[in-house]
Amino acid sequence: MTNELKNPVSIISAASIVGPKEGEGPLREHFDEISDDILFGKDTWEKAESELMRRTCEKAVQKANLSLNDINYVFAGDLLNQDAGSVYGARSLNRPFFGLFGACSAMGEAMSLAAMLISGGFAKNILASASSHFCSVEKTFRFPLELGTQRAPTASWTVTGDGAVVLSSSGNGPFITSCTTGTIVDKGQKDVNNMGAAMAPAAADVIKQHLKDLNRKPDYYDVIATGDLGIIGQTLLLQLLEQEGIDIKNQHEDCGLLIFDREKQDVHAGGSGCGCSASVFASYYYKKLIIGEINKMLFIPTGALHSVIAIGQGESIPGIAHAVAIERTLS
Amino acid sequence: MTNELKNPVSIISAASIVGPKEGEGPLREHFDEISDDILFGKDTWEKAESELMRRTCEKAVQKANLSLNDINYVFAGDLLNQDAGSVYGARSLNRPFFGLFGACSAMGEAMSLAAMLISGGFAKNILASASSHFCSVEKTFRFPLELGTQRAPTASWTVTGDGAVVLSSSGNGPFITSCTTGTIVDKGQKDVNNMGAAMAPAAADVIKQHLKDLNRKPDYYDVIATGDLGIIGQTLLLQLLEQEGIDIKNQHEDCGLLIFDREKQDVHAGGSGCGCSASVFASYYYKKLIIGEINKMLFIPTGALHSVIAIGQGESIPGIAHAVAIERTLS
Repeated sequence: MTNELKNPVSIISAASIVGPKEGEGPLREHFDEISDDILFGKDTWEKAESELMRRTCEKAVQKANLSLNDINYVFAGDLLNQDAGSVYGARSLNRPFFGLFGACSAMGEAMSLAAMLISGGFAKNILASASSHFCSVEKTFRFPLELGTQRAPTASWTVTGDGAVVLSSSGNGPFITSCTTGTIVDKGQKDVNNMGAAMAPAAADVIKQHLKDLNRKPDYYDVIATGDLGIIGQTLLLQLLEQEGIDIKNQHEDCGLLIFDREKQDVHAGGSGCGCSASVFASYYYKKLIIGEINKMLFIPTGALHSVIAIGQGESIPGIAHAVAIERTLS
Repeated sequence: MTNELKNPVSIISAASIVGPKEGEGPLREHFDEISDDILFGKDTWEKAESELMRRTCEKAVQKANLSLNDINYVFAGDLLNQDAGSVYGARSLNRPFFGLFGACSAMGEAMSLAAMLISGGFAKNILASASSHFCSVEKTFRFPLELGTQRAPTASWTVTGDGAVVLSSSGNGPFITSCTTGTIVDKGQKDVNNMGAAMAPAAADVIKQHLKDLNRKPDYYDVIATGDLGIIGQTLLLQLLEQEGIDIKNQHEDCGLLIFDREKQDVHAGGSGCGCSASVFASYYYKKLIIGEINKMLFIPTGALHSVIAIGQGESIPGIAHAVAIERTLS
């Protein structure tokens, strides 16, 4: 399902705050803040994630030269049980709040819903955020960190970071011009150490749908950027699309492959987590759109709807991805 | 933040399926289906919740005389970690999916977003669902059921049920005419056996905001129905609003007080869970709106954004509530 937006929706600001490891990666110069402290001044990892979320949201509002009172809605999601990262982070923002769960597709879900509400005249300014924290997420989904469990070669490294954007009915762009909402795609993948394989079919599905709905070829876009497929997911995505006669090799990038140096940073398949695509978009890509290094991009945060309990009961990992088309100028 | 909907959004069908205990309660004649089997034919409680969700969604679509292909988006939420009830339930629906987390306010969040998207011209038909299951939820938030732990007098009983509605740009009503999106309200309540007290301040806040934004008195509505405050939350809500000079005693009802017989069914403070307000609306209230026993209602699903990990770390329980105005005819 693709909706083209009839009224302009401008991304008037973007903010990103990340942890120490992300600050040592290739995108270090693009983030607004790099925290040396993985706890962000708090005493637990979960409180750290909420603090990271709150700070990034406030920074995005400040960079838009607005105050929180100018924000009509906050859309936010994360990976923790009951969205605890976003809920406790958004509590002090004191704005009308919509909590989302789309796993690492959260930023795509938030930007899609926010863009439609603004284009439809229901809001002037909306804040969209997605966050993750390596420690709180690993603890939730895999092993206690204290065990020092060896990581599988197919595993990805959850990004400690938040990306937040302010979308507005006014502003000079870049503009969200359409959004394609994904369906849940599950090919039976059960390996909790291979999120890329769980998400690639959903990413392929939404890209195919988007191009078909708008009758576009991949080269309409300068960049087609997925969220956090990593090296395994990227390989699968390109293969799956090739089987459909769609070649995106020249346009495809993956935020999970950009945020870390896989050779030097020991992250195996790449970066992952809601905060991966959100922080990479809100720093690296947003700047490129502003200065015109990119004119048109398709941004596709990808989510593995992974539940520890479901996996323990023999279930597979469903994937989902939401595509957001962003253009520097309106044609 | 209140949005009045400029274009009609009709609730063209509503379906409800509940478990055995709900089927013994005062609303038994109103539900579409009462399952004698708490497992809904599955082998785990979580799979049972997903099956309940899937079946109720399919029934709502069928009652609307539509097929799943006519549904543009599915909005759904539940209480399980990573929305596992909705995710695995919606997987086989194979429609564009937005996962929500608003705890027991999920149905208000789903109906608000769906109504705005339809009024804005972004969709023709949207399916909105919220579910809960007593066993999967108690296990997630409190004690293993096998322990037989004594329940506090302030505790509520999580409803096993799902309510689903199809909203449409066509149809003869009842109509969603406005929605007021709540902010997170946290008064420092930390007792996980008293959800009513955690939610009442958020409910009071959104009711006050709604009446103020639309310059209405409570008697504009025949019914002002909160989600699952129970007897403690209801008492607090009425007190909090009275302090603001707002008297809703003549209009107020609470789905959590309607679904069970507190004298005979040993549910303590009342019913709760995402499926409480959703199933009561989709059965009892929807029928009253159709036959004209109610002409105008304000429906306010209420959520305690309770996270076991956050509580373990000394946090309080934030509340949220979303108000949806529903009118039998458009003025």
